[in-house]
This record gives sequence, structure tokens and C-alpha cells, in this order.
Amino acid sequence: MSKVTFKPGTMVNPVPVVMVSCGDTEAEYNIVTIAWTGIVNSEPPMTYISVRKSRHSHGIIEKNGEFVINLCTEKLAWTADYCGVKSGRNINKFQEQKLTPVPGQYVKCPMIKECPVNIECRVMEVHQYSSHDMFVAEILAVHADESLLDEKGKLQMEKAALICYNHGDYYGLQKKPIGKFGFSVMKPKTKKRLAAETRKNKKG
Amino acid sequence: MSKVTFKPGTMVNPVPVVMVSCGDTEAEYNIVTIAWTGIVNSEPPMTYISVRKSRHSHGIIEKNGEFVINLCTEKLAWTADYCGVKSGRNINKFQEQKLTPVPGQYVKCPMIKECPVNIECRVMEVHQYSSHDMFVAEILAVHADESLLDEKGKLQMEKAALICYNHGDYYGLQKKPIGKFGFSVMKPKTKKRLAAETRKNKKG
Repeated sequence: MSKVTFKPGTMVNPVPVVMVSCGDTEAEYNIVTIAWTGIVNSEPPMTYISVRKSRHSHGIIEKNGEFVINLCTEKLAWTADYCGVKSGRNINKFQEQKLTPVPGQYVKCPMIKECPVNIECRVMEVHQYSSHDMFVAEILAVHADESLLDEKGKLQMEKAALICYNHGDYYGLQKKPIGKFGFSVMKPKTKKRLAAETRKNKKG
Repeated sequence: MSKVTFKPGTMVNPVPVVMVSCGDTEAEYNIVTIAWTGIVNSEPPMTYISVRKSRHSHGIIEKNGEFVINLCTEKLAWTADYCGVKSGRNINKFQEQKLTPVPGQYVKCPMIKECPVNIECRVMEVHQYSSHDMFVAEILAVHADESLLDEKGKLQMEKAALICYNHGDYYGLQKKPIGKFGFSVMKPKTKKRLAAETRKNKKG
């Protein structure tokens, strides 16, 4: 297969799609949809969001040093897109999109009730680049819908039907995973046990 | 829906799965699979990878200041998992996994021929955190399989069948996108034109 060379582009794909909520007071509450996010450290868990300097949320997060990452589902794809193209300078996105702000445990800014997973974040560093600022943040707590837990309280993320962003398009994930981390070196015994557990969870 | 609170975790999902290749000389060539990656700036395009300090590739990238991000497909999921759990200190992953190192245009380290998209990167900053170091890098060039281009030379990423990482599992994406960036505010006329283009591309 021969390859074609392109000029530099933001070509890491697929990437997450999250709705970031921010604002200290109800009048300030806002939502911005972000694909430039991910994990930067495991222990302790740290994340980042890169926000275009012109975005309304940029000033709010810069001022308050707090935000919430709300994971997005297939059902919320339309809303996520809307919150990514519209500006909170002109509209109240919570009201327009019938989203419910609920209080976090550590941060003043609201979490989005309708999102299955909410991640409370406190900014630790800001790295300034040409078009975007990268807010590197500590993850303070994670909240997840009860419906995503199995009987042992383990989070089953596949039930959330999350979406990702792939070169300009929003995509849902396939129903069945290809494999689990470590599946290429997994012992047959472990494989068998995991398959049994999966069957049990599907019935439950 | 009531929510359950968890302690902090690396819960941003889904995230990319990429194979990062590095090494100045053939003896040094190595591959490490990374999910802690994404875009940090759009103009100019900048990316990052967060690499655990203990990984063999960490030292190589730190020394050379260069790496290539190779996007992973459903067919390469097993190989990607293997390159994520095994260490290059003990094995030659290119040889073991029958992957072909091909020269990049700007960097000394190899690109992986079997991956549909290769992104050449040069390290600009290293941010040190507790478990991982974040290598922030400039994207120098992007190479993509000819088979991914439509007749106008436009990249059709959906043809690559890329994978993502969702809370410990590898997933393929659904065949059909939910929508395009901006679809929530798209004029009916634009929608119609895009649908016609999609039909044409499918036939072609």
C-alpha cells in the first residue's frame, strides 16, 4: 500500500467528545463541547482540555480554575454538537438544550445530570499555545449513573453508549468489544473465567 | 437517575489507541501502545503522548525528541495490545509482530507501514507528572494510505476502521456516523448536498 503525504493536521483519531461545564454562579453557567481532551497522568489521575482562546468558556475556566467533564452518549450527540458550535455569550445552553445543572462535590461549577459520567476537575497548570490553551487538571471525583453498575458495583462503561469524534464525524462504538487490555497475552484459564462473567452480567 | 460517586480515576472515555514508534537506529527501534494521547492545539497542529517513566520507549523518546503516532485498526487490535503489554527491552516488536519500519520524511524514527495513518512528531515540551511524562509535540507531517482517499484526494477516515479504548476494552466504531461536526445547525440545503456526496462516494 503506497502512502500519500499531507501537510500537518490534527489527525490523531478517534478522540473523545465531552461536554465541559463551567461557571461559579447560575448566571455564569456554561457548556462547551471539547474533543481535545484525554488523560495525561494515571497516578494521581490527571486530565486536560484544550480550549480555543476565543471561546466564552475559556475565560470562565481561566478565572475559576474548575470545570466538569461530562461524557456524551449517542442520544446526546445532537446536543453535544449544538453546544460545540453555539456560543454561551448569546444563549443559555442548559435552558435551550433542557440540560439539568446539578451540584458537584468539590467544585462550584455544575455537572450535567443527563450525562452518564461526570468528572470533577481542578486546574493545576495552563499551557498557552497559539490557538488553544491547555488546562491540565487534577481529577477530584467521578460520578456515574447507578444503571451502569453491575451487582458488584463495578462500572460497565459499555452500557453508556458513549460517542467519539473521528476526523469530523461523531461515531458510536460497536456493541461488542474487540478485546480487553492484555487479551493478546491472556492465559486460556483467565479468558474462560472472563467469558463466564460476561455471560452472567448480560443475564443479570 | 441517581448517581454513585467514585474516587478519582482515569475516566475520560473513549480515548484513542495508537502505536507510537521511536528509535534513531534499527537496533533502537521500538513500539509502545498509548491511549493517553490527543490533540492540544489546532493551529499549528500539536499533539501529546503521556508515557509511563518506566517504559523502554520513554528513555528513547526523551533522548531523541522524536516519535511517530501510528493509528490502529480493528485488524491491528491484537498487535496493539501486545505492543502495550510487552517491553522492548526484551523483544524486537517489529520483528515479532511482523511490522515493517519505513522511513519518515522529517524524523529519524521509523513509521509503521501496516498502520493506515502515520503522524510524524517532534517533541517541544516535556511536562513531568508523578507516573507519566507528557511529551507535547509539533505535528510535522501526516501520511495516509492511498486507499483511504476519495477521487478528489479527500481523506475518508471511516474507511480505516480505527479503534478506540473504552474503560479497559478495545472497540471498533460503528459503520455509520451519527453526524458531522455542525449537523445540529446545518441548513437543509447543505444536508442534502452532503447526503448526495456520500452516496456518490459509496458508489465510487
